[in-house]
Amino acid sequence: MRAVCVVGLGLIGGSVLRAAVRSGRPAWGATVSASDASAALAAGYDVSSTVDEAVMRAVDEDALVVLAVPLPAVERALRTVAAVAPSCLLTDVVSVKQPVADLVARVVPTARYAGGHPMAGRSVSGWESGSESLFDGAPWVAVADEETALEAWREAAALALDCGAHVVPTTASEHDAAVARVSHLPHVLAAVLAATGAGGGPLALSLAAGSFTDGTRVAGTPVDSVLAMCEGNRGPLLDAVDDALGRLGAARGALASTGGLAATVRAGHAGRAELLAVRSDEGREEVRIDLTDPEAFDDLRSLGAGGGRVLRFEEDVVVGDLPG
Amino acid sequence: MRAVCVVGLGLIGGSVLRAAVRSGRPAWGATVSASDASAALAAGYDVSSTVDEAVMRAVDEDALVVLAVPLPAVERALRTVAAVAPSCLLTDVVSVKQPVADLVARVVPTARYAGGHPMAGRSVSGWESGSESLFDGAPWVAVADEETALEAWREAAALALDCGAHVVPTTASEHDAAVARVSHLPHVLAAVLAATGAGGGPLALSLAAGSFTDGTRVAGTPVDSVLAMCEGNRGPLLDAVDDALGRLGAARGALASTGGLAATVRAGHAGRAELLAVRSDEGREEVRIDLTDPEAFDDLRSLGAGGGRVLRFEEDVVVGDLPG
Repeated sequence: MRAVCVVGLGLIGGSVLRAAVRSGRPAWGATVSASDASAALAAGYDVSSTVDEAVMRAVDEDALVVLAVPLPAVERALRTVAAVAPSCLLTDVVSVKQPVADLVARVVPTARYAGGHPMAGRSVSGWESGSESLFDGAPWVAVADEETALEAWREAAALALDCGAHVVPTTASEHDAAVARVSHLPHVLAAVLAATGAGGGPLALSLAAGSFTDGTRVAGTPVDSVLAMCEGNRGPLLDAVDDALGRLGAARGALASTGGLAATVRAGHAGRAELLAVRSDEGREEVRIDLTDPEAFDDLRSLGAGGGRVLRFEEDVVVGDLPG
Repeated sequence: MRAVCVVGLGLIGGSVLRAAVRSGRPAWGATVSASDASAALAAGYDVSSTVDEAVMRAVDEDALVVLAVPLPAVERALRTVAAVAPSCLLTDVVSVKQPVADLVARVVPTARYAGGHPMAGRSVSGWESGSESLFDGAPWVAVADEETALEAWREAAALALDCGAHVVPTTASEHDAAVARVSHLPHVLAAVLAATGAGGGPLALSLAAGSFTDGTRVAGTPVDSVLAMCEGNRGPLLDAVDDALGRLGAARGALASTGGLAATVRAGHAGRAELLAVRSDEGREEVRIDLTDPEAFDDLRSLGAGGGRVLRFEEDVVVGDLPG
């Protein structure tokens, strides 16, 4: 099995290291955080004393290097990779994909890179918050852009599967647009709802229904973590906010003019039904894609665009399914 | 104990009848729904054959009449009350309060009326969905307007306490403004979020995080039930939507200009913290209000405005508490 070198041992990186070891892979990590490093060491994991040393070892063992640092720290980590292992197999687990792809293209263009993003909780941070089962059953995007090397995509996808996730193939820009809508916009709307509710004073809050409790839950996430996530995906989030503003403005107009909210409420009801349909295990259709086929990447992107997922490899064939 | 006559035996009315019986009160009901009537009868409850008959019996037994019909059916029920029991003790459990108060003032001005609103789930309907414990631990607004008769308020509040709820005293218009923010706006924003997410296609939905799942949950509520609730509180909901639109527009502007969402996210985080503080059992301050005091109603409204609640009566004294 391919060895894994994890750079950054916070919630996500620390969980990748644990899950890789669980799968039986040789795996080690490094981090600039002294507390994460000592906690990982104390838990019995193989932790190099510096990031340089960890990446040098990746060259010796032909390991997949996994960048698991926050977006602002990616460039510095890439400079280390460029200096020590410029042609390594490389992936990352950062929550936006186009900005990382741009950095890789600029700093380590010779790396065999495919971006990744496991969709796992982020309201806590640090090694101690991680677990080997964090990714079990979760979607994990493996970026399949025009310029992605097949070999690199395959390594990123195999890691995701070994970590217990299923793989969603898509492009970097489609990933960023999608998560703006379903991961970042929910934080913005939760904040707006919480502030508008609190604007009604203690009386309103004392009468808050389950709808308000649910709708504001993620407003309790630490502020810095929400800002890093949302501001790091500024352009796509702006599009998503504009879409939501348009819909809320239309609801406002309908309520003011005819008093009717049917179009708004029906569209929301249909959207929720589509969410449940995409997630349903019922009637899913098996999809097989032969990676030796020259159109394999187009087929993978179509699979992701249709709400599908990759479940396993059978030699050169990808086996997945689409919602029914 | 005061007898109770419940008009309408759907989710809320049916639960009031059961909870009143549980508390040991003499209680009966009536409904124009043949299916609810036969289900309530089959469950062993005392169901009159017509609403007229039930309300006539309320006169004989000096019962509190509880209107538990949807807003569009309130006027017809009030005409029955006006014809049969024009000076009865009267409350209701309809989810908006000013429109009902206006109808009562017009149709049965001689009734001794105080409006009520138990804050309990509404995503299902009908007798079969109800239960005697539906209101346990829930807030139940008892309207204390300038023109509300003390005697009527006391009866409405006592019923709420006997049903297992705690009582929140406030005015009809403050109630309607508050629930617009914390009960109706959440449905509008959930619909907007669900539709915007679905606008990203199956890919976006397949990547949806817990934030999206939580934020769209109530978009799964039956459309008619959401429309009845939201459209019945049109004016106050319009104010709440305008407030949310302003906040979302400000977030949009900040994201577009500086890229920063700190003000939005911090306000949301503070709002969520206030919600948890209002609900917390820690450090609550006991409040006692003597109903024989001429300023008792002012004190009750202040209690509600501060996020407080009434927990019990000790003869003429109301005992409650305020958040710490």
